[in-house]
Amino acid sequence: MTEKWKSLAAEKRQRLAGAIPREWTSASIPPPEQLDVTGFPKQSGSLSSRELEITDVADVDLLLRKLATAEWSAVEVTTAFCKRAAAAHQATNCLSEVFFEKALARAEDLDGYLRTRGEVVGPLHGLPISLKDMFNVKGVETTVGYASWVGNYAQEDAVIVAALYEAGAIPYVKTNVPQSAMFVETHNLLVGRTVNPCNRSLTSGGSSGGEGALIALKGSVLGVGTDLGGSIRIPAVYNGIYGLKPSYHRLPFHGCIGPLEGQDCVRAAVGPMSSSLGGLTTFMKAILNTQPWLKDPSVVPMSWNENLYALDGHGGGRRLCFAIVWDDGMVKPHPPVRRALRMAKDAITTAGHKVIDWQPLHHHDYNKLSSAIWLAGSRRDLLSLAKHDEPLLSNMGLEEDTSPGFFTGGRAKDATAYELWQLQSKMSKLRKEYLDHWQETASQTGTGRPVDAIICPASASVATPHGKNVYTSYTSVWNALDYAAAVFPVTKVDAAVDTKPAPHAFHSSIDKTYYEMYDPEAINGMPVGLQLVGRSLEEEAVLAMTQIVVDALRKGVHARL
Amino acid sequence: MTEKWKSLAAEKRQRLAGAIPREWTSASIPPPEQLDVTGFPKQSGSLSSRELEITDVADVDLLLRKLATAEWSAVEVTTAFCKRAAAAHQATNCLSEVFFEKALARAEDLDGYLRTRGEVVGPLHGLPISLKDMFNVKGVETTVGYASWVGNYAQEDAVIVAALYEAGAIPYVKTNVPQSAMFVETHNLLVGRTVNPCNRSLTSGGSSGGEGALIALKGSVLGVGTDLGGSIRIPAVYNGIYGLKPSYHRLPFHGCIGPLEGQDCVRAAVGPMSSSLGGLTTFMKAILNTQPWLKDPSVVPMSWNENLYALDGHGGGRRLCFAIVWDDGMVKPHPPVRRALRMAKDAITTAGHKVIDWQPLHHHDYNKLSSAIWLAGSRRDLLSLAKHDEPLLSNMGLEEDTSPGFFTGGRAKDATAYELWQLQSKMSKLRKEYLDHWQETASQTGTGRPVDAIICPASASVATPHGKNVYTSYTSVWNALDYAAAVFPVTKVDAAVDTKPAPHAFHSSIDKTYYEMYDPEAINGMPVGLQLVGRSLEEEAVLAMTQIVVDALRKGVHARL
Repeated sequence: MTEKWKSLAAEKRQRLAGAIPREWTSASIPPPEQLDVTGFPKQSGSLSSRELEITDVADVDLLLRKLATAEWSAVEVTTAFCKRAAAAHQATNCLSEVFFEKALARAEDLDGYLRTRGEVVGPLHGLPISLKDMFNVKGVETTVGYASWVGNYAQEDAVIVAALYEAGAIPYVKTNVPQSAMFVETHNLLVGRTVNPCNRSLTSGGSSGGEGALIALKGSVLGVGTDLGGSIRIPAVYNGIYGLKPSYHRLPFHGCIGPLEGQDCVRAAVGPMSSSLGGLTTFMKAILNTQPWLKDPSVVPMSWNENLYALDGHGGGRRLCFAIVWDDGMVKPHPPVRRALRMAKDAITTAGHKVIDWQPLHHHDYNKLSSAIWLAGSRRDLLSLAKHDEPLLSNMGLEEDTSPGFFTGGRAKDATAYELWQLQSKMSKLRKEYLDHWQETASQTGTGRPVDAIICPASASVATPHGKNVYTSYTSVWNALDYAAAVFPVTKVDAAVDTKPAPHAFHSSIDKTYYEMYDPEAINGMPVGLQLVGRSLEEEAVLAMTQIVVDALRKGVHARL
Repeated sequence: MTEKWKSLAAEKRQRLAGAIPREWTSASIPPPEQLDVTGFPKQSGSLSSRELEITDVADVDLLLRKLATAEWSAVEVTTAFCKRAAAAHQATNCLSEVFFEKALARAEDLDGYLRTRGEVVGPLHGLPISLKDMFNVKGVETTVGYASWVGNYAQEDAVIVAALYEAGAIPYVKTNVPQSAMFVETHNLLVGRTVNPCNRSLTSGGSSGGEGALIALKGSVLGVGTDLGGSIRIPAVYNGIYGLKPSYHRLPFHGCIGPLEGQDCVRAAVGPMSSSLGGLTTFMKAILNTQPWLKDPSVVPMSWNENLYALDGHGGGRRLCFAIVWDDGMVKPHPPVRRALRMAKDAITTAGHKVIDWQPLHHHDYNKLSSAIWLAGSRRDLLSLAKHDEPLLSNMGLEEDTSPGFFTGGRAKDATAYELWQLQSKMSKLRKEYLDHWQETASQTGTGRPVDAIICPASASVATPHGKNVYTSYTSVWNALDYAAAVFPVTKVDAAVDTKPAPHAFHSSIDKTYYEMYDPEAINGMPVGLQLVGRSLEEEAVLAMTQIVVDALRKGVHARL
């Protein structure tokens, strides 16, 4: 007899395939040996030229204007993105759920509303939005990468999903996540592996890896992810898109189902991923406009702050001081990442701002402590979530490995509550130390202010081969601190430029592993992104300063043309 | 050989007595049988008439104006309050530490500053401020009611203490707390018991009981307490003063030493206690003005919001809807408390606002869950804090009882971290339910808004005999929810009016105990206060609405005169 979880998974895969209209799928799917599938949505033949035109608009605000003026109807925009999402899924296996009919019915309603009332429902009127498969959508399954969760239909919308509906958006797909959502790659025993559309031998990142691949292929322009240690930022930079990890208390989490529920110290934050930086800003404004603190008690009552977005408190953005993390002292970033940092430094300096070096304050301690906090109860938590003897994957490698993993193996301590409190108390102290460290930079900036924002790698590498993406401290340190952080694309790997350097004095064994893994030819052309880090609950300033950096980088490119 | 903790305590008591100048103490201390000592500071003979005039000013803002205009110097104001605090201590045993010399030296500096520069240092210029003995003051002991902590000199000021200094205030005394600060009365093996100045056979409340007694005797006009389950609000109402329990993330906690450190779910909040409501407002403005989020990472970056204080979002305060908790379904409030609720209802209605009944939503569940969360690690925590075999008191009764107490006995579970997460997850769900419950009142208010604020007892009783103050759910439910709440005096017990009623159908055994305890003669003349509860992080609105209620009550009194 087939094990129950296997039959559930088989049934779900069949349903998922069946939910995509046959005419929206292509017979000429790329052969396995074709690594770069970024051209597939166009080549698939399933989208009309108008549908390609619509979905090629990466600028969320432009798309919203076309929807608001009825130049494009919600139905045609939604149809186009449903079709392109289906193509993206054929190429990268990025979806875990589709609800196209529900989306199209809503699009029709929205079109009717606009036609009869002459106004939009809200700021996201008619915009299809993709959701990481952790957010409850009423009547739709939430599986979080567990085969054994098939049949777990949500009774009500997550608060953020309700907010999206209120703002006029059209949820239409859920995107794939790793089993348990506790990996920074995307593979599970339900839908399988989501690969990177730029090079399918490489990871899409994770845990919001389905979002990353889908948005990179323009099967979505705006999606919602979560980030406990890099789960928005890593797939965003590996796929060449934008992402924002807000502070935990800024966006509503209620109705987002995930691991380590009730763990209240280093928590996953909900945030947007988008093909445009403006998409992140528009998303934040739209959600905060719904006053989510009246629906989720964990959200602080802070409206979108236009003054903070105008960089009040940062000299109006006229002469900023950024600080760069060149190396966290544990794993030296790979050459393309270091080149991106240099590009950012040059561009920012040329734009008239100041750049200094950031001293990473014992980042290793922050990450070790976060892990210890998660490990205090992770084994019992993760074992209790998998049902019907579904085995737990210990890593995301190509060989299926179900030996005990990081969060269920020997390091998982089954600590006592008292021991957990000691760890949490230590985290409070470390957070205070980092804040003081940041404040003390006021003496070095020349602006009279402490450093305005930190520029940091989002990962030591670009997308790695499957199963090799194991070092996350460039992102997770900011989760430990609950700072707001955005990621943005900077350049692409150029194997001719980003050559393999001679070995350096390794910081650690993992530094050596990362050095040895570096193979410029294998990653040629892959997206390289960076991270901009601001203070807790300073999302507006982070977005505004990211815009300044992105604009500076664009000008730099133009200057060289 | 004397046990170490005993000799430490003896040494501290001697030092404390020695630190109070002999000429500031009175030879004619009230005899033990004198219960009401509210007249003692005047009768003590240690204060001049001018010092009595200064310390009789209960209005913090008036005192600040006199200081700012140099009508009264900081030195004379500080001297007056030091002397009156010494008298209050003789009558109620409310202090655990004095640093008069340090305070007077600072007062001199402040006077010099004002004289030479013609401006104040900050909004609290020259104001003596008392501190619950949990806040670190550099060079001063922090003992938290543990005899065995004698010698624990703070290395640096707590963030809030630094903020007070920055604002121009003058810390001068630390006030007594119960051993471990985990009781709502005030007694320990170090300084002993703090009694209620209106009736010394009754409790001052706790854990900020030293503050309560000191401020009631006008030995301070403004003090700082903490509140985990009622520890600001209970002593405030038992002593007839004002208090504010903000939401946890509003004021800086760093450098406040207390039990259950690292317990991050239902946390103690720092807040002010004062002889005037204006004192609470002035305190909040002054502290928020120092941008405490730049010094303590647990503080949200929310400045004092004058619009919220003007009741934006509450119809400008013109026609509010309050809801009254008459009975939480567990312990029926005693007659004077019920009378205070009726007085509030009448006054508010007369003032043109609406009053409806509040349905307490399973308050018992919230309190049980908070306790379970604390009990998950409280035994190990409390045992580890007491040193040198100092015995732990199990209650605050007159007979010393060191059998295992609530937080160290059989209910203390030494739970696992995973079990704690399950409790915390449940708390998240309960918080969401309460928020929804509140939002749903919009259909009953007639204002188009949900209920603006809840009016609730702060305790089922007024000050109880020592060791009998055991039911705290009227306050602790709001800690579980992290709502902002203020308390204010309403009336005094009148034994002729607040007669003992016939027994009702008891909700619970503790309800019966409370009924049986009720003895109007024994509490005649004691202060009766109430609580006003608002949303999380809505401290400004809570203070503004409390002002409206207090004004309405005052008008009611005048109308009857």
